[in-house]
Amino acid sequence: MHNYIDLNWKSWLEVDPNSDFPIQNIPFGVFTYKGKRPSIASRIGNWVIDLSAMERHGYFSNLELEDYSFFHSKCLNPFIAKGKEITNKVRYRIAEVFEQFNAELKNNAEARKQILLKIEEVEMLMPVKVGDYTDFYSSIEHATNVGKMFRDPDNALLPNWKHIPVGYHGRSSSIVVSGTPIYRPKGQTKSDTESSPSYGPSRLMDFELEMAFITGKKTKLGEQVNIDNAEEYIFGLVIFNDLSARDIQKWEYVPLGPFLGKNFGSVISPWIVTLEALSPFKVEGPKQEPAVLPYLNIEGAHNLDVNLEVGLEPENSEETTVCQSNMKYLYWSMAQQLAHHTVNGCNINVGDMYASGTISGPTEDSYGSMLELSWKGTKPLKLKDGSERKFIQDNDTVVMRAYAKKNNLRIGFGEVSTKILPAK
Amino acid sequence: MHNYIDLNWKSWLEVDPNSDFPIQNIPFGVFTYKGKRPSIASRIGNWVIDLSAMERHGYFSNLELEDYSFFHSKCLNPFIAKGKEITNKVRYRIAEVFEQFNAELKNNAEARKQILLKIEEVEMLMPVKVGDYTDFYSSIEHATNVGKMFRDPDNALLPNWKHIPVGYHGRSSSIVVSGTPIYRPKGQTKSDTESSPSYGPSRLMDFELEMAFITGKKTKLGEQVNIDNAEEYIFGLVIFNDLSARDIQKWEYVPLGPFLGKNFGSVISPWIVTLEALSPFKVEGPKQEPAVLPYLNIEGAHNLDVNLEVGLEPENSEETTVCQSNMKYLYWSMAQQLAHHTVNGCNINVGDMYASGTISGPTEDSYGSMLELSWKGTKPLKLKDGSERKFIQDNDTVVMRAYAKKNNLRIGFGEVSTKILPAK
Repeated sequence: MHNYIDLNWKSWLEVDPNSDFPIQNIPFGVFTYKGKRPSIASRIGNWVIDLSAMERHGYFSNLELEDYSFFHSKCLNPFIAKGKEITNKVRYRIAEVFEQFNAELKNNAEARKQILLKIEEVEMLMPVKVGDYTDFYSSIEHATNVGKMFRDPDNALLPNWKHIPVGYHGRSSSIVVSGTPIYRPKGQTKSDTESSPSYGPSRLMDFELEMAFITGKKTKLGEQVNIDNAEEYIFGLVIFNDLSARDIQKWEYVPLGPFLGKNFGSVISPWIVTLEALSPFKVEGPKQEPAVLPYLNIEGAHNLDVNLEVGLEPENSEETTVCQSNMKYLYWSMAQQLAHHTVNGCNINVGDMYASGTISGPTEDSYGSMLELSWKGTKPLKLKDGSERKFIQDNDTVVMRAYAKKNNLRIGFGEVSTKILPAK
Repeated sequence: MHNYIDLNWKSWLEVDPNSDFPIQNIPFGVFTYKGKRPSIASRIGNWVIDLSAMERHGYFSNLELEDYSFFHSKCLNPFIAKGKEITNKVRYRIAEVFEQFNAELKNNAEARKQILLKIEEVEMLMPVKVGDYTDFYSSIEHATNVGKMFRDPDNALLPNWKHIPVGYHGRSSSIVVSGTPIYRPKGQTKSDTESSPSYGPSRLMDFELEMAFITGKKTKLGEQVNIDNAEEYIFGLVIFNDLSARDIQKWEYVPLGPFLGKNFGSVISPWIVTLEALSPFKVEGPKQEPAVLPYLNIEGAHNLDVNLEVGLEPENSEETTVCQSNMKYLYWSMAQQLAHHTVNGCNINVGDMYASGTISGPTEDSYGSMLELSWKGTKPLKLKDGSERKFIQDNDTVVMRAYAKKNNLRIGFGEVSTKILPAK
């Protein structure tokens, strides 16, 4: 059995031509329906496919798997842990069942009723249980902008930046799924004009437009992932909104890095889009100069051409697009990030999450954070409702979207949406 | 039922007067015996008490618990999650069964055979599944030493240090139990005299003498832990060896903090000593000047007087004690660390781990890392076998011990032992 979903396939389910979820996508997520037990799922168009129900109805029996229990888990980790051989088989089989000339489910009204749900009817949940979470800093445009604002405009990049995909460990417990509102954090801040710090709600709330990958294969402590095999460890990706309290971050981050300025909440899109679905959109990354050390060296197309955008929606108002960027700008690829992460023998697990860092592009309207878009608050953004923003205000909703498009194929992530509530 | 284990109690089990594990300790751990299924356990003297077996024999039935399944889990998380009311009852009941005048188990040879194992016969495992791991930086002597060596000797402490219990997120996956050997990590380093970085085994391997606490109560995203209640969230403590590759750390850590210089392995002692067992050793911490913000303010005795020592043992040679310190020196208390960690609404879980940062004392022989003891390698340490050490060499074993002592009561942690193997 091959695992390639034909580009000419269409589904017998109605799918809008602009949908992020054609039959060529087949992403994975977890949902609950009317408060029932969570199920793992896929999606075509606006239809959620209950994979647990599909298995119960025997639609995977031809795969002759040794174990079917992962279909009935409450998160995707046991499925992902089966490895790409199995996950790709399942993904292909889902597409096959929904392919327009396949009648096996199409003509079974009883099974269809239990397997298919409308997206509006379900609540999407966290797709994986995240073990460890790492945040990289891999956009040269973002690192340069931050360096210009806070350090030396003429030497914006630190000496290690072009040699190392710089990263740090973040908080797993506070990664939540799209739709979860986040309270404005309180904490300690000190402005340059104050002599001692004060306590209160953050005044400089920001988003960071990131993409994150999830590993599907574990290693033992002491093992390295070779860069040429690194993509075999990557199951798929989500959009990642790395919410940041800039004033808390600024006061706390020296010398051990960001902590409370970040760990009050990070928000992900609910559908994990597989690396296989994204493979038609692989492109070469920016030229790396100076050359990287051999353990980070990889030839070919290992970046992804994925369009990104951020919308800001004040309460009871319409959304304004404030940023349009692209994942292809990233200086460091996912393969390089993973090879670097494990070069010292650090062990990784199934379900671990690795965010890219803010993905800014070369133009001012492609910057991936309010910090950069408003240039530290010196250039407020005008919104459609006439109001202005330097940073995020209470009750603003931040929406991020991501999709890849080439010829007639569009593979997308849907969106990640977060409302910022006033501090408790 | 009260939960206080009488100071005059003795056990019918033989216990060396210098044991870390008298009947007043009753710590918790997880072991496996001859490769069998892991069990949760306690310890008196050199006897491991199989709590699963104790429960099967009915020794906890008088507690009239609603649920006994946690006794048969493979890690302590479900037990700890029951909360202090239950964990303290269980702890008291274990002591009661082993109290010298109690014959209920003492006279049951069959049950004793299944419940009691010699410490040499078992393999200790990770006591908890760690969700998130945070490392603080709470010793003023350590922060000052590092500041003197790498920054300005006259302004060694950074401006935020006395206002914030500075901390950062570390790697959970690579926390392992005492006895696990760790390979010397490879990675990228750049000395001041090199123009570009190179790849190879770390040349500056170090230990960091730390203590870590484990939370036993979770919070929801958006909730704060009030400092006055913070200790209710702390189940117990372990010794924590935060192995560090100083050369990797130095090149990578700006601006986002330590990453690969730390996450190749951290090693903990196997027995979690409860906060209750340590309560006789509570002392006031150092005076905090300037005053901390109200959310960090707490009166009374919230530090712990726990003696710490580090031994270095070259292969086939005897151990040399290289450091003697004490947990009471910590500037920031555990209650302050936890109140700070959650001030922004960051949610915590049962089994999360929080290390103190290197615990250095005021004198040169009390510094908690080779970096400080050898003052950046300028003052090599002499070992008993005549060899010298600036940092850890291949096949050296690092042993850390911790115990509290007052009058006739000694409550200890045993040890955490780690051999550093040559790079793979």
